[in-house]
Order: sequence, then C-alpha cells, then structure tokens
Amino acid sequence: MVPIDAPASYTSENCLWVQDVLQWMQERETGLNIFLLDMCRKINLNDGIPPQPGQLKVTANIVFGYATCVDAEAFEVNKDDVSNGIFISFLKQRVMHDEKVTVMLDRVAEDMGRCEITRGRQALELRSNLSERRGLTDRIQGSGCPETTSARNLQWAIAHVLPESHNLQFDSGVKVQLGFAAEFSNIMIIYTRILEKPKDIVSCSVHLKDFTEGLDLDLKMSNQESLLDAGSLLPMDILLPAELPGLYTRLKGLQRLKKELTFTVCPVSIYKLG
Amino acid sequence: MVPIDAPASYTSENCLWVQDVLQWMQERETGLNIFLLDMCRKINLNDGIPPQPGQLKVTANIVFGYATCVDAEAFEVNKDDVSNGIFISFLKQRVMHDEKVTVMLDRVAEDMGRCEITRGRQALELRSNLSERRGLTDRIQGSGCPETTSARNLQWAIAHVLPESHNLQFDSGVKVQLGFAAEFSNIMIIYTRILEKPKDIVSCSVHLKDFTEGLDLDLKMSNQESLLDAGSLLPMDILLPAELPGLYTRLKGLQRLKKELTFTVCPVSIYKLG
Repeated sequence: MVPIDAPASYTSENCLWVQDVLQWMQERETGLNIFLLDMCRKINLNDGIPPQPGQLKVTANIVFGYATCVDAEAFEVNKDDVSNGIFISFLKQRVMHDEKVTVMLDRVAEDMGRCEITRGRQALELRSNLSERRGLTDRIQGSGCPETTSARNLQWAIAHVLPESHNLQFDSGVKVQLGFAAEFSNIMIIYTRILEKPKDIVSCSVHLKDFTEGLDLDLKMSNQESLLDAGSLLPMDILLPAELPGLYTRLKGLQRLKKELTFTVCPVSIYKLG
Repeated sequence: MVPIDAPASYTSENCLWVQDVLQWMQERETGLNIFLLDMCRKINLNDGIPPQPGQLKVTANIVFGYATCVDAEAFEVNKDDVSNGIFISFLKQRVMHDEKVTVMLDRVAEDMGRCEITRGRQALELRSNLSERRGLTDRIQGSGCPETTSARNLQWAIAHVLPESHNLQFDSGVKVQLGFAAEFSNIMIIYTRILEKPKDIVSCSVHLKDFTEGLDLDLKMSNQESLLDAGSLLPMDILLPAELPGLYTRLKGLQRLKKELTFTVCPVSIYKLG
C-alpha cells in the first residue's frame, strides 16, 4: 500500500506491506481478518523483484476484497461532488446485508460486472480461505475480559484525542471560541466563532494563519464559511448549530507534523464610523 | 504444477505454470476459466526468485479453487482403498449442486473447515473475479458454429484414440481377444480373454509381457483377474461382461513413451493328460 505522501518514484521501501499487516494480525490471534482494498494493483516499475512474503499461519479466517485484479488499475467516480472508488460505491450498497462476507463480496462483484465503464479494465477480486460463516453484521462478542476491551478502547481514544475547545478574549472586546473536530485520524477541522463583540463592532470574523510548516493546507480553502467549501464532506450540524455562523479550516496530513502544531488566531473587525 | 515424473530436485524449469495455462486460455477467449487445484503450494526451496507472471486481461471470468493456502501443504485420505485429496473428497459432495461455482466452493471451504485432521494445516482458498452467475452445472452453449465444435471434438477423440480390439489365432488352436480401454489420457488398460480353445486344453489364460521400456508398469500388478487388482478404480462391467473372465494389465505414464508401444502376447495352456 502506497502512503499518500510517498515520493513519486516510490519503491517497496516507502510502502506498507499488506502481508505484514496480516502477519501482525495473526500474531494477535484475531478471529477474522478482512481486507477491503480499494486501490490500484499495478506492479511498480521502480521496484526490482518484490520480496517474498513470510510464511502465514493457516487460520482459515482471511478474506481479501480487492477493487481490481493483479496488475490492473482501480477507478473512481464523481457524483454530487463526492468522489468514491468504484469498488466502494458498489460495496456501500451491500455492506450492511446480513450474509457471509464472502457471499456479500461475490454479489458486489456481480454488481460491478454490470458497470459499463470498468468493463475489461477493473473487476473485483475475492480471495478467501474463510471456513466459518462470518459476516460484517455479526454481533461483537466480548473477549470475556472487559478490562482488555476497555484498555483497547482507551488506547484508540487517546490516539485520537483533540485539543480542548478554547475561549479567547481579545483587547478589542471580542470573545472567540476555537473548536476542534476530527474527520479522520490525520485530518482535523478547526472552527472559530464569535461569542461576544462590543456594540461598536458591526461585524467580526476570526481567521487562522501562520500554521506550522509541513502541513498539507490549501490557503484558498482555509477560513471558509462552510465545511464543504473547506473541502470536508462532514455534515455541518455535527460541529456547530446551523444558526451560529463560524469559519472552518481543514488540516490534512497531520501525520507529517514533526513538531507541535501552532497557528495565529486573528480577529478581523469592522467598526461603526462616528 | 509439478509433473509426476519431474526430478526430485525440480525447479520451475521442470514445471507447468498455471499462469501460462490461464494466458493460453485467455488467448482463445474462453468464456469461463476455472482451476480446481488439489495440490501442495509449498514454495520450492530449489528455486530462486520465481519469475513474475505476464499481464493477464481483466476478463472477470477467472476462478481458482486451491486445496490449500499459499506455502501450505495439501493432504490425502485413504478410505476403502481409494486415495483422494481431501479437497477433492469434499468437492465431490457439492460439485453437482446447481449454484454459482464461487458459492459452491465457499460451501466446500466450510465443509473442510469442520474436518479435524486438516485444522491449522490446510484450508481451501477461493480466488475469483467472476462477475457473472456461472456454475459447473450450466448447460453447454453451442458456439453458433457447429463445424468448430465438431473439429474440436474430433481433435480430442484423435488424441485419445485406442488401438483396435484384435482377435489372435494361435497354433495351439487357442483364439484370444486383445482389448484396450482408456482410464485417463495417459493410463490405458489392456485386457485379454479366451474366445475359443481346443477340447484337449483344460484351461488357458493369456499373459502380456516384454513391454516397451520406459513405461510405468508394476509387473506384480499386471495380468490380474480384476481391474481393482490391476490398480484401476474403473467398474469391471464397463470392459467385459462379468461372466466372461479375462486378465487385466494397466499401463501408466503413457506420456513417457518415446517409441511405439510393443509387447508379447503369451497364452498359457493346461492340457488334459492322456
């Protein structure tokens, strides 16, 4: 798997090996290992002979759903401003169906087979040695050890902890709320809104700038009036009630940060004349 | 795939590559490509880095049913003197079911998963990009060109043509029928029976010997009174009516013959004394 920030001339050194992930999962004795991989599978011409995978255990609980065949490409579709891999578009229609995961993927393969634009170029590949009737809709079974479950949930939560919401008081009398929300593990949205302003200020908005270097930030899309304008597909109302206007900035590529995240909060006020 | 007569220290040079077979099938634009491979998949330590497969077309009609996982072994079971791969034993119970071939194989994987002796060592692996609902029980569709079909059937028949049945008259007055039957493309059964014998001969049987060198023939199992004793699992009555006794010799490894097949027909008679 090629990380989004791999160099253009990437080799297997820059990549994450699915077989390694599977091996780590097997070391933890996971009950079911499912990989749904919506990506190209082109052989990398920059690479020499790829290393041979280490030996896996025969656990009869591994399922791969590949968007495409070996050495073939996977494509995306744009619809209503939403860009989705073709595999995921079809998968989403069946992923909640209560049936064995292999049967569900086999049906997705049939659906995709009726799609004209991918014919001869992309076909779902299913690879499975799953011997039990397991589905994505199976109920989660407790490990019998609630402490382990809690510890794992806590670890996940800590890895995704957000900065706390701040209220900032400026000399001009403007009081600003600075809030944070996570879109993905490495994408964060920062929003600002005016909580109070003196009567002599007609209108005020709060801009963020001077971000730590190394972030993937499109300045033209920062400090936007809607999440969509900022590049996010999250629904607006999960952050702020619709009646409270704010400005949104979306920070991508947080995994590249080498030092603390810093930025400047900058209220822009329009005063009443006279 | 390793031929049965490959040297013990075989390398990929000695083997038949499944990917090559698939590529030849794709060149002929086959409508459905199914490989059911009941064999080990151990990585060959005599080999260096295996060559990378050439690019396949995305035809969305390829199904692999592997007896086991990558780099794992496949096992056999013996029951009632019949030795079958475990995969084939389970496959035989479902192969005639009228359902999509992927669904059928997925069920075989579940059956095999309940088999204690293979647990942790062998698990069926299904690999498929089949986008249409095709089964092994689908009716054969004519190609629309009956000449092509006839030509292909003829070619197949010629490749499997058997020597004609011979009646041999010996000086002793014994008349012998020499018959031939195919068990597989490279396994032939030769049977002999007495058609006539003079009254002074109490009993007579006809033995075959001095076969062309290079054949895989166990002398202790040649000239047997039953097909089973000769090593064949074919039912007796497909060759001779049960009431006509004969002797059976089973020739294996016909593909190794470098010259014409020759042998000696040898009647052994017991004469009435006085």
